[in-house]
Amino acid sequence: MSLLVVGSVAFDAIETPLGSTNGKIIGGAATFIALVSSYFCPKVNLVAVVGGDFPKDAIALFRARGVNLEGLQIKENEKSFFWAGKYHNDLNSRDTLITELNVLGDFDPIVPESYQDCEYLMLGNLSPEVQITVLKRLRKRPKLVVMDTMNFWMRPEVLPELKTVLAQVDVLSINDEEARMLSGEYSLVKASKVIKAMGPKTLIIKKGEHGALLFGPDNELFYAPALPLEEVYDPTGAGDCFAAGFIAHMAACKSTSFEDMKRGVIKGSAMASFCVEKFGTERIVNLSESEIADREQLFFDLVKV
Amino acid sequence: MSLLVVGSVAFDAIETPLGSTNGKIIGGAATFIALVSSYFCPKVNLVAVVGGDFPKDAIALFRARGVNLEGLQIKENEKSFFWAGKYHNDLNSRDTLITELNVLGDFDPIVPESYQDCEYLMLGNLSPEVQITVLKRLRKRPKLVVMDTMNFWMRPEVLPELKTVLAQVDVLSINDEEARMLSGEYSLVKASKVIKAMGPKTLIIKKGEHGALLFGPDNELFYAPALPLEEVYDPTGAGDCFAAGFIAHMAACKSTSFEDMKRGVIKGSAMASFCVEKFGTERIVNLSESEIADREQLFFDLVKV
Repeated sequence: MSLLVVGSVAFDAIETPLGSTNGKIIGGAATFIALVSSYFCPKVNLVAVVGGDFPKDAIALFRARGVNLEGLQIKENEKSFFWAGKYHNDLNSRDTLITELNVLGDFDPIVPESYQDCEYLMLGNLSPEVQITVLKRLRKRPKLVVMDTMNFWMRPEVLPELKTVLAQVDVLSINDEEARMLSGEYSLVKASKVIKAMGPKTLIIKKGEHGALLFGPDNELFYAPALPLEEVYDPTGAGDCFAAGFIAHMAACKSTSFEDMKRGVIKGSAMASFCVEKFGTERIVNLSESEIADREQLFFDLVKV
Repeated sequence: MSLLVVGSVAFDAIETPLGSTNGKIIGGAATFIALVSSYFCPKVNLVAVVGGDFPKDAIALFRARGVNLEGLQIKENEKSFFWAGKYHNDLNSRDTLITELNVLGDFDPIVPESYQDCEYLMLGNLSPEVQITVLKRLRKRPKLVVMDTMNFWMRPEVLPELKTVLAQVDVLSINDEEARMLSGEYSLVKASKVIKAMGPKTLIIKKGEHGALLFGPDNELFYAPALPLEEVYDPTGAGDCFAAGFIAHMAACKSTSFEDMKRGVIKGSAMASFCVEKFGTERIVNLSESEIADREQLFFDLVKV
């Protein structure tokens, strides 16, 4: 089984109530997803684009974790995507300070021949146009297509493109605010019905510190708690780590069943809980198997009666 | 085993985004707690006060459900406590439109001799002064004292009284906003430590549609989900029904163990989920045993992997 990951590989600069990155660090949806997936999936194939300014040691880090970089374009004379943001005290809302699209502005994704056999596809947060192109360039539809996106792609002027992708994915992973925006419904139960009618048979609604809801194709419902934490240093990438834990679990089990999805949501929650403990990718690059297993166990114990 | 319940028995007038009560209906913390507890506890003893305006059929309803009313004072020439409020669209916040203390203004609680053997005490939301008086008038300390309160009693001018009660209770049940206000900490994990240092060895933090957290005396942690609902008609009384399900479960099991508390939190969550489906006490007065068992099972299934 192999997993294909598409998304941004980029620079972030982040301020949170507990500190700041003091300049650029590496980030981007596909960075988090590829690094986290590599713990569970032996074959992670990356589709992304960076500029010549992207650090060689960051690229070496992907390689060291066994991520296949044949689909990573390096545009030497251009600059990598850059996002700077500042989180509010509640860590649920943030202000974007800088967005420099740079290489992402005209990203034409390459899907190498060696990726064509991929059975699991993670469409990380990125323009729906790029997401749909990747889907089109795969000759065989993967067994499971999971999509993550954000409110930015739900603006009226780009919504039709988002809906085109939505019609072709199996699982959509978004947060509660985005689910309300996309559906026009406040109740998440009602929102789930509206969104499922747009295409994805399965929907994950992430609620940050309040856990995640998984709505299955046959009206199954599952609630994964979040681990109550003393401090959250930086929520950036938590949603990507969540999606990564989810799809990597499905790929590792070679499954598309709802029962496995429930465990996937727990694995995703566990990986997200590591992510927020430090800035950027700092916490997720050097996890041991036992650390991951212990963290997952905490999630199981949290709701055990 | 017997349960003593103290709290308001009163009138409410409620507006929510889905409708309004069109005038006064019966409400009050002890009304919800006594009615819900009566499903699980054969001996529920009420300590409360109403005016001559309180409907005789509401009093008959308590009797019909086996609630002992020896401690219910009826002040014929006075009026019952009345609260009117309007909920905002998110149902998590509300405006108080009217508060008429009436009989609650100088409530001097009577604890009849027949209540003296009570082993479980539920201090429903009410002035800390009344809560402490009830505790004092019990010659033998109950096995388990659970307290519910609200932000109104956390104002600087009444906080010392609240802290006097807190020092004497086993379990405190409050919502997330109140936990933050009482502790001065945003993180609920940190808040729990500050609040536990005030007295209660066990703390329940209710998070509305996001479930509830139970912090145990030995740093145990349990997360009970909330049932995602299509519509919430009226959140009034949900916290009281939650507390009732919790303490009635403990009383029914004759237990004070953390393991039983976990199930108590699930039972409380289930009873609260009924409460919000209709206005006031409408949904909780005629539940069947199988309805309750089925609802509880939904909560267990929701997190089952």
